This record gives sequence, C-alpha cells and structure tokens, in this order.
Amino acid sequence: MREIWSEKHKRKLWRLIWVVVAEIQAKYDLVKPEQLQELRANQDKVDIPRALEIENEIHHDLMAELRAFAEQCPLGGGVLHLGLTSMDIVDNADVLRMHNSLVHIESRLKKLIAILVERVLNWADYPVMGYTHLQPAEPTTLGYRLASYLQDLDQHLVDLQRIKANLRLKGLKGAVGNRAALRKLLGEEADLEEVEQEFARRLGVDIFPVTTQTYPRLQDWQMTNLLAGIGATLHRFALDLRFLQTPAIGEWQEPFGARQVGSSAMPFKRNPILAEKIDSLSRLLAQYPRLAWDNAAFAMLERTLDDSANRRTLLPEAFLLADELLICGEKLLAEMTCNRVAIERNLLTYASFAAQENLLMALVQRGANRQEMHERLRQHAINAWDRIERGEPDSLAELIAMDESMQRYMPAEQLREIILNPQINTGDAAYLARKLAEEVKKRVGKLEGEGRGFI
Amino acid sequence: MREIWSEKHKRKLWRLIWVVVAEIQAKYDLVKPEQLQELRANQDKVDIPRALEIENEIHHDLMAELRAFAEQCPLGGGVLHLGLTSMDIVDNADVLRMHNSLVHIESRLKKLIAILVERVLNWADYPVMGYTHLQPAEPTTLGYRLASYLQDLDQHLVDLQRIKANLRLKGLKGAVGNRAALRKLLGEEADLEEVEQEFARRLGVDIFPVTTQTYPRLQDWQMTNLLAGIGATLHRFALDLRFLQTPAIGEWQEPFGARQVGSSAMPFKRNPILAEKIDSLSRLLAQYPRLAWDNAAFAMLERTLDDSANRRTLLPEAFLLADELLICGEKLLAEMTCNRVAIERNLLTYASFAAQENLLMALVQRGANRQEMHERLRQHAINAWDRIERGEPDSLAELIAMDESMQRYMPAEQLREIILNPQINTGDAAYLARKLAEEVKKRVGKLEGEGRGFI
Amino acid sequence: MREIWSEKHKRKLWRLIWVVVAEIQAKYDLVKPEQLQELRANQDKVDIPRALEIENEIHHDLMAELRAFAEQCPLGGGVLHLGLTSMDIVDNADVLRMHNSLVHIESRLKKLIAILVERVLNWADYPVMGYTHLQPAEPTTLGYRLASYLQDLDQHLVDLQRIKANLRLKGLKGAVGNRAALRKLLGEEADLEEVEQEFARRLGVDIFPVTTQTYPRLQDWQMTNLLAGIGATLHRFALDLRFLQTPAIGEWQEPFGARQVGSSAMPFKRNPILAEKIDSLSRLLAQYPRLAWDNAAFAMLERTLDDSANRRTLLPEAFLLADELLICGEKLLAEMTCNRVAIERNLLTYASFAAQENLLMALVQRGANRQEMHERLRQHAINAWDRIERGEPDSLAELIAMDESMQRYMPAEQLREIILNPQINTGDAAYLARKLAEEVKKRVGKLEGEGRGFI
Amino acid sequence: MREIWSEKHKRKLWRLIWVVVAEIQAKYDLVKPEQLQELRANQDKVDIPRALEIENEIHHDLMAELRAFAEQCPLGGGVLHLGLTSMDIVDNADVLRMHNSLVHIESRLKKLIAILVERVLNWADYPVMGYTHLQPAEPTTLGYRLASYLQDLDQHLVDLQRIKANLRLKGLKGAVGNRAALRKLLGEEADLEEVEQEFARRLGVDIFPVTTQTYPRLQDWQMTNLLAGIGATLHRFALDLRFLQTPAIGEWQEPFGARQVGSSAMPFKRNPILAEKIDSLSRLLAQYPRLAWDNAAFAMLERTLDDSANRRTLLPEAFLLADELLICGEKLLAEMTCNRVAIERNLLTYASFAAQENLLMALVQRGANRQEMHERLRQHAINAWDRIERGEPDSLAELIAMDESMQRYMPAEQLREIILNPQINTGDAAYLARKLAEEVKKRVGKLEGEGRGFI
Repeated sequence: MREIWSEKHKRKLWRLIWVVVAEIQAKYDLVKPEQLQELRANQDKVDIPRALEIENEIHHDLMAELRAFAEQCPLGGGVLHLGLTSMDIVDNADVLRMHNSLVHIESRLKKLIAILVERVLNWADYPVMGYTHLQPAEPTTLGYRLASYLQDLDQHLVDLQRIKANLRLKGLKGAVGNRAALRKLLGEEADLEEVEQEFARRLGVDIFPVTTQTYPRLQDWQMTNLLAGIGATLHRFALDLRFLQTPAIGEWQEPFGARQVGSSAMPFKRNPILAEKIDSLSRLLAQYPRLAWDNAAFAMLERTLDDSANRRTLLPEAFLLADELLICGEKLLAEMTCNRVAIERNLLTYASFAAQENLLMALVQRGANRQEMHERLRQHAINAWDRIERGEPDSLAELIAMDESMQRYMPAEQLREIILNPQINTGDAAYLARKLAEEVKKRVGKLEGEGRGFI
Repeated sequence: MREIWSEKHKRKLWRLIWVVVAEIQAKYDLVKPEQLQELRANQDKVDIPRALEIENEIHHDLMAELRAFAEQCPLGGGVLHLGLTSMDIVDNADVLRMHNSLVHIESRLKKLIAILVERVLNWADYPVMGYTHLQPAEPTTLGYRLASYLQDLDQHLVDLQRIKANLRLKGLKGAVGNRAALRKLLGEEADLEEVEQEFARRLGVDIFPVTTQTYPRLQDWQMTNLLAGIGATLHRFALDLRFLQTPAIGEWQEPFGARQVGSSAMPFKRNPILAEKIDSLSRLLAQYPRLAWDNAAFAMLERTLDDSANRRTLLPEAFLLADELLICGEKLLAEMTCNRVAIERNLLTYASFAAQENLLMALVQRGANRQEMHERLRQHAINAWDRIERGEPDSLAELIAMDESMQRYMPAEQLREIILNPQINTGDAAYLARKLAEEVKKRVGKLEGEGRGFI
Repeated sequence: MREIWSEKHKRKLWRLIWVVVAEIQAKYDLVKPEQLQELRANQDKVDIPRALEIENEIHHDLMAELRAFAEQCPLGGGVLHLGLTSMDIVDNADVLRMHNSLVHIESRLKKLIAILVERVLNWADYPVMGYTHLQPAEPTTLGYRLASYLQDLDQHLVDLQRIKANLRLKGLKGAVGNRAALRKLLGEEADLEEVEQEFARRLGVDIFPVTTQTYPRLQDWQMTNLLAGIGATLHRFALDLRFLQTPAIGEWQEPFGARQVGSSAMPFKRNPILAEKIDSLSRLLAQYPRLAWDNAAFAMLERTLDDSANRRTLLPEAFLLADELLICGEKLLAEMTCNRVAIERNLLTYASFAAQENLLMALVQRGANRQEMHERLRQHAINAWDRIERGEPDSLAELIAMDESMQRYMPAEQLREIILNPQINTGDAAYLARKLAEEVKKRVGKLEGEGRGFI
Repeated sequence: MREIWSEKHKRKLWRLIWVVVAEIQAKYDLVKPEQLQELRANQDKVDIPRALEIENEIHHDLMAELRAFAEQCPLGGGVLHLGLTSMDIVDNADVLRMHNSLVHIESRLKKLIAILVERVLNWADYPVMGYTHLQPAEPTTLGYRLASYLQDLDQHLVDLQRIKANLRLKGLKGAVGNRAALRKLLGEEADLEEVEQEFARRLGVDIFPVTTQTYPRLQDWQMTNLLAGIGATLHRFALDLRFLQTPAIGEWQEPFGARQVGSSAMPFKRNPILAEKIDSLSRLLAQYPRLAWDNAAFAMLERTLDDSANRRTLLPEAFLLADELLICGEKLLAEMTCNRVAIERNLLTYASFAAQENLLMALVQRGANRQEMHERLRQHAINAWDRIERGEPDSLAELIAMDESMQRYMPAEQLREIILNPQINTGDAAYLARKLAEEVKKRVGKLEGEGRGFI
C-alpha cells in the first residue's frame, strides 16, 4: 500500500498516462512512431530530484514532471500533453491508485472474511453468555456473536466490489471538462467517444460521462465512507474483545508474544494493545469522510483547489489506515484465544437469572398474563441480586418457588427447577450463524490466492 | 416527513407490529380470535398522555405504551409482546419509518432530477464562461454545467434505490438476536424462518439474517451517508449560484418574491438566501454520519444503549434536513433565472484570454513545440493582464501578433484574429450534456406521480 | 434552558433591545418621551401569530416582528430600529441568550462540582484496584479516581467563567459593522463610543471592538467547545461507570428506581441507562463544534448567511444537550452506589499481581538491576496467569520465592510474603485527592444558592 | 517544527527526562555520581537502529529505547527508570514537544499580527465597497475589513499564551497516577511534592495536580482547538481573498511569481493557489479536535490506549498544519496586492444603491416613517436593478426623485443628488480599525526578534 501511494509510483502513472495518450494520438498522426518509441524508452526513468528542481522554479508539480520527462526525450518531448490539462493526468492517475488500493483492500478483506467464516462454523454451537448494556442477558453462541461481525464485513465487501466496479476516470476532458482542447486538436470529425473508450480500455477503468476539470469528488467521498465503514466494524469487534479480555470476564484474549512487555512498571500486564490500536486508528479514519465531503461540497464551478492540498493526506492516509486496520484485525482474529474455563464460569454464574425469560414463556404458555408475571419476576430478581451484592447466597430460586401467583400455573418444585438447573437456551443461534457463514463462503468463493499483482 | 417522525406515528407503528405478531401467533393458537379482534379494534387508539403517565413511573417508553395498549384490551392485552423484546418492536418500527422516509425522499429527488433534466436539455448549447479557481478559464455551456449536478444527483438516486431495496428489519430475534424466546414459545418444531418471512411480507421489508438485540447500526450510517451526499451536491450547486449571483458576475439569480425584504437597513439588497440556507443546513447534515458511525462502532456485544438517546435526534433530523434541502433545491432550480446580458458580457470579456488554448492547439498542429509556446503565451497574458488592471486597454492580441517565434508558424494577422475574434469553443459540452440527460430521463422514466402514499 | 431558547423569549429580547436603543436615542431627541412610553407599554406584548402572518408575506422574521411591534405602537412604531440593521437586534439578543445559558450552566456545573468535592473527600482513602487497558494494574483510591473527573470539571468551570466574562455583544455597528448609519443619524459630533458603552451597560454584557454585520462567529465556536468539553468529561465518567457496573466487576452502580423496568424480555436486568444516555448524547454534542467552526471559517467579507439556518439548531441544541448531560451527571454522582464487597473482592484477587511493582522497588533498593528483575517478574507473572486461566491455583508467590536470582537480594520467605500478603500501596492517592478537593472547595466557594435568576 | 516532532528529538527528550530523574534521585543516594556522569555522557547518543532492533523483539518502544540507552551505560543503565512507568517518560516528553511547538507557533502568529497591524494602520481610511451575502452592501474601509481578521488572530494569540502558561506535565506519578512507586522507592518521609516541583523546574513546565497513568487528554483537545481556531480565521481571510481576486471584482491579488505557471492548459491563468491551499488544509486541521475529544472521552479508568496510536498522527499533524497555514498566511498578507482601479470602480458602481441607507436616515431625520420609506426605497431599487440587468441605464436616482411621498420631506433635486453623488459614508471604520490596531500593537509589544531558540 505504501508503494501504491509513493511519490515514485505516482510519477510512473503520470508518465504512463502521457504515453497512453501519445499512443492514441499517434493514430491521428500527431505523434510520430520514433517519438513514441523514445517516450516509451524513457517512460520509467523517473528522476524526482530533477523534477523537484524544476518545480522549485515554476511552482507546478505536474508541469515540472512534464518538463523533466520532456528533457529526457529530445524528439518526443514536444508532443507530450497535447490537448490535455494537468488534471487529465493527475486525476486519472489518482483513480488508478485508488483502483490499485481497492484491489489490495479487497484481498485483505476476503482473507479476514475467510478466517471469520471458519471461526463462525467452528464455534456455531458453542454457548456463551450474551451481554446487553455490558450486563449478562441471555445465552447465545460464540459463533453467532462472530457472525454479527461477519455479516457487517461481508456488507463492506459487497460495497467495495460495487464501488470498484463503478470506479471511473476523469478521461481526457480538459480544462473545463468538455473535451474542447481535444476536439480542437483532433478536429470536428474525430470520434472522441471512441478516443476516451480506447483510453479507458488501456487503463482498465471506465470514464465519467460528465466532469468539470476534475472527476466528481463524490467518488473520493464514497471511497472514504467505504474505508471508514470497515473501520467501524473492526472498532466494534476490538471493543468487544477489550471488554471480554478484562480478567473478571476473561473470555477472549488477544495474541501475546512470549517476549512481549506489557508495561514497564507492571511486568504482569497483558494488555489488549492490538485491539486498542484498532479502536484508536479507526477513529482517526472516521474523520476523513467529512473532509472528503467538504471537497465534494466546495468544488466551485468548473473546479477550485479546495480539495488539492488536503487530498495529498486524505487519500493515502485513508487507504493506509484501512490497510493497517485489516492487518491488525486479521492478526487478532487468526490468533486470538478463547478461554473455555472462563466462558463456562460466566455462563453458569448468570444463567439462573437468564432463565427467567424461559420461565416467563412457560408461564404464559400455561395461561398466565405476561405483563403481570414480568413484574413479579422483576421484583424477585432485584431482591435476589441485592442480597448477592451484600455477599449473601443466591435466593432467586426460592423467592420464585414461593410465589403464589406463579404456583397457580406451575408447582413450586418445577418453578425452582427451571431456575436452579437452567436450560441453556441459545435459540437458533447455531442455525443462523451457520447459515450466514455458508452463504458467505459460497458467494465469496475460493478465498485464497486472489487479489494479487495489483501494482 | 414531520408526520413520519411524529410521536403518534411511531406509536401507531409499534401497535401495528404488536398486532402483526399477534396475527402470526394466532396460527400457533397463542392468541385467540376474540383477542385478536379486540387488539385490532384498539390498534389505532394511541393515547399518548396515558402512556407518558405510565412511563413516568416505570422509566421505559415501550413498556409504557404496551401497558397503555393492554389497558385498552382487557381480553387480548395479556398476550401482547409474547416472545418479544422491546427492540423487536422499536427497531422494526424505526426501519419502517426509514422506509417511509426513503420513499418520500426518492419522490423529491426524482422531481428535482426531472426539473434538472429539462434544464440541461434546454440549455445544452448555451455558451457560458467556465471558471476554475473562480477565475475565468474556458467557455463551456450552461447545460453542461448543470449536467454536473445532474450526474451527482442521479448517483444519489441510484444509491437511494439500492439502499431502499436492501433495507432490512431486525425481525423477531429477541433479546440477544438468536430467536431464543420465540423458539421457546413456539417449540422446536416451529419453522421460524417462515415466521420471520411472514412478518417481513406483512410489513413489506426484508429481514437481516443475523442481529444482536438490534439490527446492525451500519444501516443507519449508510442512510445518513446517503442523505449527507445529497446535501453535498446541493451545497455545491448553491455555492455556485451564490458566486454567480454576485452582481459583478450576475449570471444566475435565485427567485425573489415581489414583496420580499432583503435587508432591514439596505432596501435594495437581493440576497441569495435560499442558496445560503442550503449551504448552512447541508453542513449541519454533514455532521450526522460521524454520529451514526459512532453508534455502529460502539455497539458492544449483544447491544448497548450508546445509540439510543442520540438516534432520537439523528434519524428524524437527518431526514428532515434532507427533505428541507430538497425542497429548497427544487425551488431554486425551478425558479432561478439566468441573465443573458451578463452571461454574454462575461463571455466576451474573458474570451480573448481563453482563446489562448485554441491558439496553442493551432500552433502545435503546425509543428510548434507545445512547452515553448505555452511559456511565451503565459508571459504575454501576464503582461496584458497587468496593463488592464492598471486601467490600460487590452494589448494581448498585439503582443501575440508581434511574437516572432509564433510568426514562424502563423502570420501575424492570423495570430491577431484568433485572439480578437475568439471562437467560442465549447467542445463537446452540448453533446455530453444532452447524452447524460437523455440517459437519465430514460432510466428514471416517467417522473411525475410517483412516490405518493408513503405513510 | 428551554425557556431561554423559546421563540417567545427571543422576541422579548428583540423588543428589549429596540426599546433600549430608543431610550438612548431619546437623549438625542430622535424619540419623544410619549413614543418611548408607548413602546415600553407594549414591549412585552409579543404576538407570535401576527408576526408569523407578516413573515409569511415578507420572508424576513426580524422585520416581521418589527412591523408587529410597530402595529401595536401607533405613536412610536415609526421610530423603532432607527440607524439599525437586523443583526443589531438578532445578534445582540443571541449573545444575551448565550449569557443567560452560561449562567445556568455555571450553576449546574458548580452543583456537580460541589457533590464531587464531597465524594472525593469522603472516599479519599478508600482503596480500590486501579485498571489500565481494562486490566487490573495497581491499587489506587476511590477518591483519587473521582478527583480525576473533578480536576477536569474544575477546568471547565474556569473556562466557562472566563468565557462568560469575555462574552461580547455586536453592539450597534450596523450593516457592515462600521456604525455608518448611527454616525449619519446622530451626526459627526456624537460620541458613539459612549452610545455603545451605554448600550452595553444596560444589557450587562461588553461589546466587540470590531465586527462585520455580525459579531465574530469564533465566539459561538468557543462556546460549543466549552460545552463539548463538559460532554467529554461526563462521557469519560459515564463510560467508567458502565464498565464498573458489569456484574463481574460490580464496583459501581447507578441509581435504579424501585419500579424501573430494565428490559421487557429480561426482568432481572439493571442496566446503566443514565450513563449510557450520557455517552450517547455527549457524542451528539461533540459534533457541534465543527459546525460552529464552519460558521466562523465561511463567513465571507462583511457577512454571509452560511451560519444563519444552522445556528437555529446549533445554539439551542448545544446548550440543551449540555444542560441535559449535567442533569444526568448530577443524578448519577449524587445517587450512585459503591459496592464494598465487590471492591474488596477485586482488590484481593489482583493485589498479588500488583504487588510485583512493590517487589521490584524492594529488589532495586537492595541493589538489583531493574531491567533484569523486570524481565524475570514478567515471566513468572505470565506463567502464573496462564495456570489460573486453566483453572489451576495461583502459583505466583511460589515461582517468585523459588527464583534464585531474586534470592540473592531477599530470602525466599520474604519474597513469598510480599506477594501473598500484598501491602495495598496506594501511594499519595489520598493526599493528592484531598489536596485538589480542598483547593477547588476554597476557590469555588459557597456552592449553594448561586446562579439563580438568570432569565 | 518538523525537527520538534522528529523521531530523534523525541528520543532525546526521553533520555533527557531519564537523566533529570536520575539527577533528582541522586540526592536520595539511589544513583551514584559516577553513574550519573556516565548517563549524562551518553545522553545524546541516540541510536535509532539499535532501539528499533530491540523494539522488534519486545514490541514496546519506550522499553526498547531504555534498553538501548542502558546498553550504552554499563554502570548507570541499571538505575534508569527507577520508580517510573513508561508514561512518566512519554507523556512528559510529549508535553515538552507541545511546549516547544507553542513557542514556535506563537512566534509565527506574532509576526503575522505585526504585519496585519501595519496593514490595518496603513489602510484604515481607504474606502472599499462592503459586501454582505456576496452582494454589494455599504462602503467600509480596507483597514477595517483587515481589522476583523486582526481581532480574531489577536484572540488566538491571547488563547495561545494562556494555554502555554497553563501547560502541565504529567510529573512522576507512575502507573496509576498516585506516585505509589516513587513513594515506595523514596520512603514515607520523602517530600514528593518537592521532588515533582524540582522536576518541573528543571523542565520549565508545571505539573498536573492529579493524573491517571497519563495527563488528562483534555489538554490535547485544548491544543487542537487552539490550532483549529487559527485555521478558521485564516480560512476566512483566504476565502475572502479568493472571492475578491475573481477578475470581475479584482480588488485583491495574491502574490504570483514571475515564472509561476497557473495552468498547463491555460497559460493566462493567475490562480489564488496559496489562498486555496489555506482553505484546503485548514479543513483538514478542523477534523483533529474531534479526534482529540475522543481521546479525552474514551480514556477509561486509570488509562487505556484509545489515544495512543492516533496521537502519533494527531499531535504532529495538527502542529505541522498550523505551522504551514501560518507560513502561507504570512506570505499572503505580506505580499498580496490591492488593485486601486478595481476598488474604485466597484465603489462607484454600487455606491448609488448603497446611498439608500443614507437617504433613509436623512428622511427619518426630517420626520418620515422609517418603515414606510424603507418599503418605497426597496421597490425603487428592485425596479432600477432589473433595468440594469436588462442592459438599460441606471434609473434609480430618477425613480426616487419622482417619488411624491419622499418629496414631502425633501425636494426632488436633493433626493436625486444624494443618489447621484453618493457620499461615501464609511462611518467609524477608520477610527475603529486604528483603535484596535494601536491596542494590539501596544499589548503585543515589540514584535520582532521574539520566539526564537525554542528547541
């Protein structure tokens, strides 16, 4: 990803585009074969120091690179950039870089999804206590919890693939987007639709039907939204892990190297630093869409530079952050451990409380009024909980068994039993988790080995 | 839109969902026909004062409405909410409100697009000076400028339609999203997939395969992104108008009522207040996606309330703002005027400068070195401009005609002619504008009369 | 707070300002005593329906109110608004509303600080386990933890008082801020500095030396920053509480009404809903500063309406949210409970690990190399922890007692003792907590009974 | 600024703090003179490659630097970091970097203010047309317009100086902020207040009374707010310039190098690229405060790493951006030109309209009803303007002179005269501008030569 957004790669793409345009213009006899040959021969000889030297004088980076390239090509230098404006180079190159980056992100995302699919399938049935409001609620399964991340990541993948397929270049539309210079250069008869299509074919990305001097900055905004969305899902996963890794819960644990130092003062610490890093960086990433929105909203008339300076940060940073987040997320998902002892302990500790919903269902099925029973159970639970917090033993089963309004529907013994030997009811968690994972697996297909060779 | 997000409409939807669930449960003999009949008879008798009275006591708005409804139904009240958790009502109702709102926004957006399509077609050929950096650049056409908004708005419509089609309910998945309560209630044999599908069919919206206690908050985030995107495009249009309405440019003018007061101190003022309002409100709208992102990123485990309080502002405000922006945008586009005198004046004033690109093309076609000619033209332009700014007459044509390095490719007379009688070269602006407008028109189809009856 | 930002209160302030200006102009014989008397007599007869009726026609809310007021005053109506522009009324009234609101917020903040001071003093010595990375770290005291919120809230109070004292009106500077109309009206000889000072004295707030048509919007931005800052600190406190209320930790608990329903499905739930509400709303509040920044950054030349429409949301919402957050924060702090049983349990459970830093200090004092000992302790801790997580007994003391490199500095018995009977070393927590609380108490002074009568 | 935030400078500060602590601990005989001597001798020998090598193994950057430093000091290495936790080094070093940066920013800001003071004084009387809503409004002066930026920048300077003076270190408070390790190490009798004060004196910055493992992240947030505020004011100035540089207005022009290329396609272009850059970058800067807010709001209990990874971008980027903005702002203000011809032309063109407020005042002084006259003038202005826009001559003076309701207060000749020979009434603009500039000049004092030597 750093390679894609490097200064050198950018200039290579600029030169690539100049040469591609020259190739097309050669068909119109604007460029001679020997000129084209010379241009191609020097295409990759990017000389950044020389270009910066020129830029220092003329304060225009693209024109500086153009002159540096032209200096290397005594024959063909003069025919470079015919009928073009800077943004015909810069903007198209940026779209190519975004395309490269999307291919790369797609590959990482698929790998993450592949790992997650396996995890969901493996743990689809494994019961864990579910938490709402960070309070124990009702049992669910580990696989189903993971399936919630999987569903979101899969949505991101669908969005990414759509955005990638719809990505569009500016084309060769010139200073105000209407192909005036190209039309002037190639004449009234020229089929400029075909010229732009040829350009698109050679670069492998479609072209916007309408542009100003730049392609619509909404495209950047969509891109940052996509990336920030991936950040949101990884943030959620990492935050869950951080909570579940607190020793009193202790259910999940992020990988920890054998020689890793947790704290310079507290040698025993095992901190969820990867998860914390994900949360920290994803919030930074979350700030970029508004900036991209500004660029879309403030681009006045045929263009202003409201976007220019901040896009030099915006685009690379957004992609680099998303890349880093996916790397961390993959490491976490691939290497995190689950502590069966802790999971079981938590499940047992809170299951008698969770059993109340089962009891409520049972009472209703026997004809009780739901709203009344809910209120009585609520009071028993609060009383029992208060005693536990004062260090007294758990009295919930007894309070319920002695409740006469409930005994009308069920004998005391049975009431006590439902609470004391709580059935771990995880509902359709396993089924739903497995179903999603299988569907994703089928759709995403063979996950290894894709997304290579993108630069 | 205010109706959709009213307190009353929300409670109607809650009751609708309770009744729909009761209808489905009636098939499983959990609800008797006379109970169902009573529930239906009281379904629309929302009594907000009574519900608030109860809420004041129990601090839970949904349970308060449930009790208020149950009070009205001595027979059927006790079977309401069987196997459900609050979010099975609240979340599904919110999705229905979002669906209603999207239908409404779609209708407004289509109307705006319809107006814009006509404007683009009408003015496709009409030449205007194009501006980059707020500086006159090269000519384009009025229709082509408008086509740039059209293309963006059309993208928003495509996004809206996709999001609307993919909108999904939470379904009846209960406290931790695994249908445990429903499974317990209806038994191991029950086909819960079918139950949820029936629920979806009756409400007209699909269901998420996997949820926690809530549907994934990414869905809210997508929604706010969509709306904020519409805001960005309208912001851009309004900002352009504000600039073009400054009297020194004077090309566009927003509608102004005959009795409208521009300023309490300056009676002659005609301020672009609609456009300013659009810019002001769209920036407010642009702040909501990050909040929705937070809600997606901070929803811990099977759910927390990180989202709850702010969604009461987030969802209605985002839709109400988008609605208001579209109303203003439609008024602007439908009633704004273009000042032909001013447009022509600006075109003539700056055309001789803009003619330089044509001259550059012509010189190159005759064999001149593009980079050399560019540099000479730049110097002539700067010299000429400096004189104009000192109040002297325009000398550009003369400077160019006298340039010996140019005379090598073209006689002085012809050089002078290109500058003095500048050909207004708008390139393919008209063609590109018309092509887009026709395509949008075809795809969006018959634009009137749609989107009605959405509540 | 709702009263301050009500439509009626706004119009009362508008009329107040018109009358104050008329009073001052009466000294210059521009307003006759009987006119003034009539204006004063009708000043409070705000008639919103009539004003809206007029606004509907002329599309200018301030002028509509002016006409409605003038209609009520056949004698004096014609001399209203002399030498003024709308913003001389609207902007000054907004500053008065902000001033009222700050007084109100200050009062709430002081009350919160007063409660917190007492809590810090009461619990200054009470030991609790400290957590870093949500992992047990080393002991601290409850009062010291609370002192960290106190210090931040005290900073907010200092900031609030400075901002309140520096708050400035626009004054009577007219359409472009240079007092041209007032100068024309009152003549070259008039002492306009004195006129504006008189205006400031009557309204109780200073005046900006320089304005455009409006006061600088940086002032709004400072205000939203102040409020968002309060939100950040309350967010932090509430997030801590939510974590500490998870039953496995169980140290803190937010107030819970005896009849409060935690969940419609799970009657036993006791959710930290106040704390969750604080976190949810403070994130909404956190989105307003950027909007205020936009208003400051986009106010072009002598003014544009970039700010106008969104300030109708921005200002009231920011103050109402801050008010609501402070109400919730006060309730939480005043009524939350701490569970001594849980606090002690957690302290004992993790103290042996925390004792390692004490041991490290002791070994270093006896001449050991800090970096070496840190590494050995780290390994013992990780080994011991791993066993605990597999359900085996705690072996840390034994591993350390048997470490020969440590025995060089201390006998095995003493090593074991330090771990097994860990000294709860809370350092200077009590001293530091008490010192801060006493200083704040002294500075903030008698806290009850202040901040009243602000409307 | 890049130097301050360089990797090397950071590590130098880390080592500086270790040595300062060792110096203080030497008084307690924990460090021997020869150890101290060795530490000092190696203090500046930062060896980044070696430190990264170690970090690669132990995944902890501070501990890696500690080991690298200790390796260089066989005698004293073992006594480094006694009683400290990582954040006692890292956090204090960050505060020192922020202090350095503030000194640097203060210097730049003062220079900008000094330039602006001179410009305000020079142009205090120079009349220009004022614009509201981007529409000509009433005349003001160039100096007064600039005074509005000056007032805001002066506010930023006041804020900066307060924040700089209040900047506080974390001190030596250890793992959970209560000085437990230091207390253990130095004994119950040690005066730790004095130890921390000594530390503060040596580093030249005060210390927070209360911290967790880190200093309160509100401090970072205040810092980013300060910097973003500077960005807002420069954004406003730059946006004004961009509008005023559009040739149809043409009043201001940013510096343009003689060889600078405006456009690769349009050699005549003179684009306000510095101003556009300021607007672009200040919006990026405006996104950082929310991130800093997150870090303050999400720091749980005695600390989490929510802040860590993003602060590596946040702090340097915010300062580097502010620095870049001030550099551009200074260049703009120092070298921008004003076009007297254009200023005069605009003033004359719009003055007859602006004269209406003068006329309104004159009519009122003669007893006319303000509200009635306002309405008549509004109609005349709109009619006259409409004709101008159709290309007809200006008829405003005639319409007014013929108005019988006005003739009651003033003869037609005089009415016509007020409009045709409009008095350029700039009110107290010159006085107010000069007054502010003199006050700022006096307070800010001798502006050259300050702020040096900050690293």
